[in-house]
Amino acid sequence: MLRETNLATGRATILAQDARLRDTGEFGAIDRFASKLAKRAGVRVGLGDDCAVLDALNTPVISCDALVEAVHFRRDWTSAFDLGRKTLAVSVSDLASSGARPVAAFLSLCTPPDLEMAWLDSFYDGMESLAEEFDFSVAGGDTTSAPQLVLSATLIGELLPEAMGRPVLRQGAQLGDLVCVSGNLGASSAGLQLLLSGNATFSPAHAAVLERHFNPTPRLQTMRVLLEANRDAIHAAMDISDGLSGDARHIAQRSQKRLTIDANSLPIAATTGEVAEQLGLDAQTLALGGGEDYELLLCIVPQAFPALNEAVNGALTRVGEVVEGEVGVQVLNAGEACSWTHF
Amino acid sequence: MLRETNLATGRATILAQDARLRDTGEFGAIDRFASKLAKRAGVRVGLGDDCAVLDALNTPVISCDALVEAVHFRRDWTSAFDLGRKTLAVSVSDLASSGARPVAAFLSLCTPPDLEMAWLDSFYDGMESLAEEFDFSVAGGDTTSAPQLVLSATLIGELLPEAMGRPVLRQGAQLGDLVCVSGNLGASSAGLQLLLSGNATFSPAHAAVLERHFNPTPRLQTMRVLLEANRDAIHAAMDISDGLSGDARHIAQRSQKRLTIDANSLPIAATTGEVAEQLGLDAQTLALGGGEDYELLLCIVPQAFPALNEAVNGALTRVGEVVEGEVGVQVLNAGEACSWTHF
Repeated sequence: MLRETNLATGRATILAQDARLRDTGEFGAIDRFASKLAKRAGVRVGLGDDCAVLDALNTPVISCDALVEAVHFRRDWTSAFDLGRKTLAVSVSDLASSGARPVAAFLSLCTPPDLEMAWLDSFYDGMESLAEEFDFSVAGGDTTSAPQLVLSATLIGELLPEAMGRPVLRQGAQLGDLVCVSGNLGASSAGLQLLLSGNATFSPAHAAVLERHFNPTPRLQTMRVLLEANRDAIHAAMDISDGLSGDARHIAQRSQKRLTIDANSLPIAATTGEVAEQLGLDAQTLALGGGEDYELLLCIVPQAFPALNEAVNGALTRVGEVVEGEVGVQVLNAGEACSWTHF
Repeated sequence: MLRETNLATGRATILAQDARLRDTGEFGAIDRFASKLAKRAGVRVGLGDDCAVLDALNTPVISCDALVEAVHFRRDWTSAFDLGRKTLAVSVSDLASSGARPVAAFLSLCTPPDLEMAWLDSFYDGMESLAEEFDFSVAGGDTTSAPQLVLSATLIGELLPEAMGRPVLRQGAQLGDLVCVSGNLGASSAGLQLLLSGNATFSPAHAAVLERHFNPTPRLQTMRVLLEANRDAIHAAMDISDGLSGDARHIAQRSQKRLTIDANSLPIAATTGEVAEQLGLDAQTLALGGGEDYELLLCIVPQAFPALNEAVNGALTRVGEVVEGEVGVQVLNAGEACSWTHF
């Protein structure tokens, strides 16, 4: 642990100047948060000591994400509960795409001193809600004051038994592989564009894209089923957080291969198309370059596609191939601007 | 991973507006940092994928700490190199007190867009310097922009073989135990007070306390030797980060015991006393309540003290006892202000 000293005043206190937390104090607040967080299987010592202690991990898989106020979220847009879920969901999504399940989460909560306890309560409820859903524990972290809300989460996971001891990395793509995605793309980005537009109308389509933006679902179950169906057929995977074309570049670079993506093949929900049209945006562009889809991007053996797709009830879409040629990503059938990217 | 969108401008870019990083860009910067960081034993997949993958961990031990600019450090006071070391050292210290060694570190770097690359280079050199010294790897993290520098580190460690399968927790203190500390106390706090005073004079004493403040040494080797000498005699431990009296309260609370501390017995370096006197401060108060000593606080079987102390070349000092009575900490022979604390 690190002592907190306000270097402007020289006062060594934690959140003590904070009227909103004054009734509970730092350790009172930590106790209050801790009371919301259940300790589940795999955690031997959770909150309350110098360190957390876990049970043995066969193949530990770790992911980190930091969310910064005004950069990744706005408190006037998102609910505290949804933000709590998303703070952990984005890292669960990383673990899932590697073939791992979460075991324990650690949160550094850097918070302005005037944050309302009710907001923090709801934020912790949201974290616990996701932890319960995916059966892991929020097992530790750090609480400190900061001028701006910064949420840094580290998730410790373990390789799924279905992964047969081999994590799925970005680097395994092979010539001839199909490039596939799960679910549909562009909805989260459409939700963000809706928020940025200041558009205050409300329809089922608006609700659908906003839900995808605020409350993404990590595709752990999909990945588990795919690995169980045919581990050997899945050569590379990652989750789509930076947008399909950008993330495909990561696979291309790490695998030293050339990927093509056919813009006409992208799975786009009707609601995403509807919102894009209202905003005067191109849904294909959102699906190609928009971020935070948290769907799986996979490179798989072509012959395995039908059985894999059936195993996940048709959740997969073929969007491209791994082909001969220069390392990079080529987007086919799209506008000039994004038709070709390379290193 | 999480996409970074500037919610003020709607631009989805990472550090792209940053002149100081513009020459390299986000992924260029990450590659540059990665080139400084060696992958050591225990890390199967390090930087560059969605997740890091470690080798099997028998008893994983995890610690987190966040350092916030202006709260925990000032860039005009500390060197980037020292800050890089300290960012990881404070968590290594937590691991050490629990009887664990570090295996892999994960850093969320939330940085203002105008931070100089040279500063960041030196910061990463500092992290690598500590990682090399304690034989672990900086194996992942997240890089994002933020209005203020926030450094959030999570260390994954493994229980030392010398701990015989049992982590050393805050909760094991027993009636009759001696309360001991390693090294000497108050130096880091004296260093901080020196900085806060604006005092610009320089002497060996000043250098000594500033070094303790900027470059603390995790007591991993001391803990290893103590555990090897007599694991069963060590009932509880933690590192002193919030100040001896405050941290003793954590042990008292978790162990549901009453601890006494004799203020006259505190080990204080001559240099600490010298600086305290110059600043008109009481060295005993700094040693009792000052923070960031990063020494060990231990509750041990009295009969084991001589052998344990000999094993660490006299590095231990008896500062108190675990006694009958109300749960809490009683400080003997100190001024009125800090003579008694309880819950």
